[in-house]
Amino acid sequence: MADIASHLETARVTTGPLPASTKIHIPGRLHPDIRVPLREIALEPSANEPAVRVYDTSGPYSDASATIDIAKGLAKLRTPWIEARGDVERYEGRQVRPEDNGISRAAKPDVSPFPEPNMIPLRAKAGHAVTQLAYARRGIITPEMEFVAIRENLGRDAALGKARDGESFGAALPDHVTPEFVRDEIARGRAIIPCNINHPELEPMIIGRNFLVKINANIGNSAVASSVAEEVDKMVWSIRWGADTVMDLSTGKNIHDTREWILRNSPVPIGTVPIYQALEKVNGIAEDLTWEIYRDTLIEQAEQGVDYFTIHAGVRLPYIPMTAKRVTGIVSRGGSILAKWCLAHHKENFLYSNFREICEIIRTYDVSFSLGDGLRPGSIADANDEAQFAELHTLGELTKIAWEMDCQVMIEGPGHVPMHKIKVNMEKQLESCGEAPFYTLGPLTTDIAPGYDHITSGIGAAMIGWFGCAMLCYVTPKEHLGLPDRDDVKVGVITYKLAAHAADLAKGHPGAQLRDDALSRARFDFRWRDQFNLSLDPETAQTFHDETLPAEGAKVAHFCSMCGPKFCSMKISQEVRDFANQQNSESFLAAEEGMAEKSREFRDKGGEIYLPSTD
Amino acid sequence: MADIASHLETARVTTGPLPASTKIHIPGRLHPDIRVPLREIALEPSANEPAVRVYDTSGPYSDASATIDIAKGLAKLRTPWIEARGDVERYEGRQVRPEDNGISRAAKPDVSPFPEPNMIPLRAKAGHAVTQLAYARRGIITPEMEFVAIRENLGRDAALGKARDGESFGAALPDHVTPEFVRDEIARGRAIIPCNINHPELEPMIIGRNFLVKINANIGNSAVASSVAEEVDKMVWSIRWGADTVMDLSTGKNIHDTREWILRNSPVPIGTVPIYQALEKVNGIAEDLTWEIYRDTLIEQAEQGVDYFTIHAGVRLPYIPMTAKRVTGIVSRGGSILAKWCLAHHKENFLYSNFREICEIIRTYDVSFSLGDGLRPGSIADANDEAQFAELHTLGELTKIAWEMDCQVMIEGPGHVPMHKIKVNMEKQLESCGEAPFYTLGPLTTDIAPGYDHITSGIGAAMIGWFGCAMLCYVTPKEHLGLPDRDDVKVGVITYKLAAHAADLAKGHPGAQLRDDALSRARFDFRWRDQFNLSLDPETAQTFHDETLPAEGAKVAHFCSMCGPKFCSMKISQEVRDFANQQNSESFLAAEEGMAEKSREFRDKGGEIYLPSTD
Repeated sequence: MADIASHLETARVTTGPLPASTKIHIPGRLHPDIRVPLREIALEPSANEPAVRVYDTSGPYSDASATIDIAKGLAKLRTPWIEARGDVERYEGRQVRPEDNGISRAAKPDVSPFPEPNMIPLRAKAGHAVTQLAYARRGIITPEMEFVAIRENLGRDAALGKARDGESFGAALPDHVTPEFVRDEIARGRAIIPCNINHPELEPMIIGRNFLVKINANIGNSAVASSVAEEVDKMVWSIRWGADTVMDLSTGKNIHDTREWILRNSPVPIGTVPIYQALEKVNGIAEDLTWEIYRDTLIEQAEQGVDYFTIHAGVRLPYIPMTAKRVTGIVSRGGSILAKWCLAHHKENFLYSNFREICEIIRTYDVSFSLGDGLRPGSIADANDEAQFAELHTLGELTKIAWEMDCQVMIEGPGHVPMHKIKVNMEKQLESCGEAPFYTLGPLTTDIAPGYDHITSGIGAAMIGWFGCAMLCYVTPKEHLGLPDRDDVKVGVITYKLAAHAADLAKGHPGAQLRDDALSRARFDFRWRDQFNLSLDPETAQTFHDETLPAEGAKVAHFCSMCGPKFCSMKISQEVRDFANQQNSESFLAAEEGMAEKSREFRDKGGEIYLPSTD
Repeated sequence: MADIASHLETARVTTGPLPASTKIHIPGRLHPDIRVPLREIALEPSANEPAVRVYDTSGPYSDASATIDIAKGLAKLRTPWIEARGDVERYEGRQVRPEDNGISRAAKPDVSPFPEPNMIPLRAKAGHAVTQLAYARRGIITPEMEFVAIRENLGRDAALGKARDGESFGAALPDHVTPEFVRDEIARGRAIIPCNINHPELEPMIIGRNFLVKINANIGNSAVASSVAEEVDKMVWSIRWGADTVMDLSTGKNIHDTREWILRNSPVPIGTVPIYQALEKVNGIAEDLTWEIYRDTLIEQAEQGVDYFTIHAGVRLPYIPMTAKRVTGIVSRGGSILAKWCLAHHKENFLYSNFREICEIIRTYDVSFSLGDGLRPGSIADANDEAQFAELHTLGELTKIAWEMDCQVMIEGPGHVPMHKIKVNMEKQLESCGEAPFYTLGPLTTDIAPGYDHITSGIGAAMIGWFGCAMLCYVTPKEHLGLPDRDDVKVGVITYKLAAHAADLAKGHPGAQLRDDALSRARFDFRWRDQFNLSLDPETAQTFHDETLPAEGAKVAHFCSMCGPKFCSMKISQEVRDFANQQNSESFLAAEEGMAEKSREFRDKGGEIYLPSTD
């Protein structure tokens, strides 16, 4: 234990509130014990405006009053909700084996196991499906459903009564998100709440076309052994900047233990691609994979609390030759593993053949499906081809089976797609998959800018989000080139956050524009600190400002570095406004008469444009 | 002169070719003396592919064989073309005055005047319009027109015969850009070649909906006095990464001399906002502006060779009150200067009232109009409002007058626009302005990400480029916060270059995809160096790669850092391809029979996935 204790001394993750921000919690009505976290950004007194509330993915880490100890993990807020339903049981779970961490029986693990006494896993009692979909279909509004309803309602009160503005392409955005609306959307398969019963630390969130657009950040262990604190901090860092879910794409060693540390400390859903770990268990030889090893891995991860699994069950044997003429073949790692297995055995993909059994596992823990697009295009040249759409069609079939078995499902999508071919992706997905939520990687809209693929893909992501995609998987500047570092992760998350928000605005989400408007007013009023604090990345905004005008006084100055103190369009606009407000618009349009007088009037009011800073 | 000589020792600008690149020149047919520069990127021998030719804005600076001396300026390649037309005359130009540089008569200038003996300016002989539009209407194909036709044809030969792929929203993209097509588009006002007769150093380029989408980079003198070499290098740096035109938005002192240095060294069109300099001449007091001072400034700049002028003639007095209820008022610097003048005098904008006289000046030098959108929205809240569209309507009227007088025109556009309101901007512009080229700033698709506004606006820029916008004015990460440095300028240019290219792909520009495909093949083949060299920013791509896999060997390795040497989807795809190529697709779809045999066959071929690198 001395080992672990010394380890924990360095087990620091990023904590503390964002600038001017306070964590607040809203209680439920149906379920008064739920406490939905929001972030409130205080404005300067001169703004004479209420604090701005924003969606908050960052969990207790940004709560000034929270005590964080990653060796203990987060509070298990959902345990009473889950147990109260009376349909689960604790049981002796699967034993963790050395190969789960990719090490031989004799070797000592590099990563300490999570120190809390092993959680005894929960599973559904025999014959039960413990999924949010099953409850929704039975008319039950769970605490999870009310939780997300409150979370999604940000700013909707303030926006009520305003004219709706947007083009939602058939999405049904309600004025108010009620718990009943959430239940209904889940029952129809149009939204999911990924929330494994073994991940009680989760603050529930919802993924669906009629809710705010979400983003996912990928993390994964580094080739170089890093401390568990570093691994946990990758997740904490991603959610601090706005990641709604995090996928742990670790390969190599220590997969099991690293994931345990992440799950016990994660307030957001954690997704995985189980075939990655299964492949490690057969020493990286795809041909040696078996259904039994894969099945065992699903159970291992479900017992740990993974919230959604990417499962490439649509990579069917007959589709593989369709990729032969592609410029970039199969670029999905999972897709290529399964393609290789299929070819080596010349058998149908074992995930496809055993799909109902997978559903049995999924419904026992309420893991959500993320049906993987193993044949997604890896270049502009391959976009929207036969292989891609053949697989999508199969994902639609599988969605029906999953729904039949009360499993929650979302569908993964491309990839690399030029702008004019993005919309049809959304349309085909809605049609093939019965409006199950779509979850895309980008798409990248050109291949010629490696190093900037967060941007080539941010363009596509904003567009497909607008068209109806429910969650956008981020791409970092290192895509195609190397492993993202901390800065890359932040840039990726912020880029996708702004793309998702641009999509919310364009869809006409009630209240989405309130934050833009608050920031724009701050900009117009030269409330620099409010402008920084309301932005997605206050640190960068302030740093950029200070590079040009570093003095403290410049943050309250009534001008900016673009025009300088001598002339400023914003200040002139204020004069125009003041002047025009005192004029009747009509008299303004009147002819020459009186104009000389008005001219004198304006000059008289004139005086100084740049008032001395009053702070 | 000793002063200047010592100055010039440090007068270094960025020179030298980009990696693996050679400057080549294509001669004309109608005009055999023209030499159109292209960049040819050589590929590794293993690619077994020809070098890839790309559009090259960088001028002689990236030509290994060129001698650069910024005190001499670039070769005046267009002088014989201009003089051969026989419609111009040299004349004693306007005398440069101390106030042109914003200094008093007694003060010594901070910036040395350009050392070449003063260029004697050219102007049209009395009664002539020396614009490309005038020539085009008379059926003349100028060397400028043939030059751009050759430039625009990149890759079109290779693309001929391939199915067209794209959605151009009514743009008429030809399979081949002929000089006659260029002439016709100019004659119809649908495209312009900004090329002042006093800027003979220019390598002509074209701006129009039926040509490749272009980008502009803004530069401007710093508050802190910098050397002229630094000022010139801002332009050189911008065009090195792909800026098609550069706007000099300098304010303050030394405007005239700095601009002279830039023009004499610029191979791309230079745009300005003349009201900025006019305002300096009246010590920053907008009310003191007069038509005479403005007119004199236009002539001053036209004689120097400025290729296009932003002129805010659409900011009419009656529209100003329409901005009073806006969240962010008037955000265009030029717009607010004129609004202030209009209010102070309560008179119609003097640019509007004197528009025909401006046209007279414009046609005398072939400056192009960039009709400014002084009332563009400065926030999502103000997008597409009454003031914006009232001004656009007026710009349409002014376009007709300009065309009547044989002047080339493009129209400036917003600004800040959510995604769902972008397309109507393009449609209204085409309708109001008779298909004159549109030139937009972004637009930014959300206001909540200061520090990332190159991305919020890159999204809007790619979309409006797709919808038909001819040129995109870049936004750097420092927008709204501070003055861009060298890195910001590069990020802004690359972001807009990728947005413009994404638009070209989506429009279906013949040949646009060739570079994407070449890069994607390089990616699939693990030709790392080709992947870097074909990218918009080879330096960043290689740096990012090397951060994870720094060894020289990694650049020829058949794997990347994402999956590592143990498993790689690209390599598996190659196996799939090899295997599938030897199989009849149909037999693949056949049932169980023979599958065991096929399985044996694949395993037999198996062997190592990772072949030792052969280089």
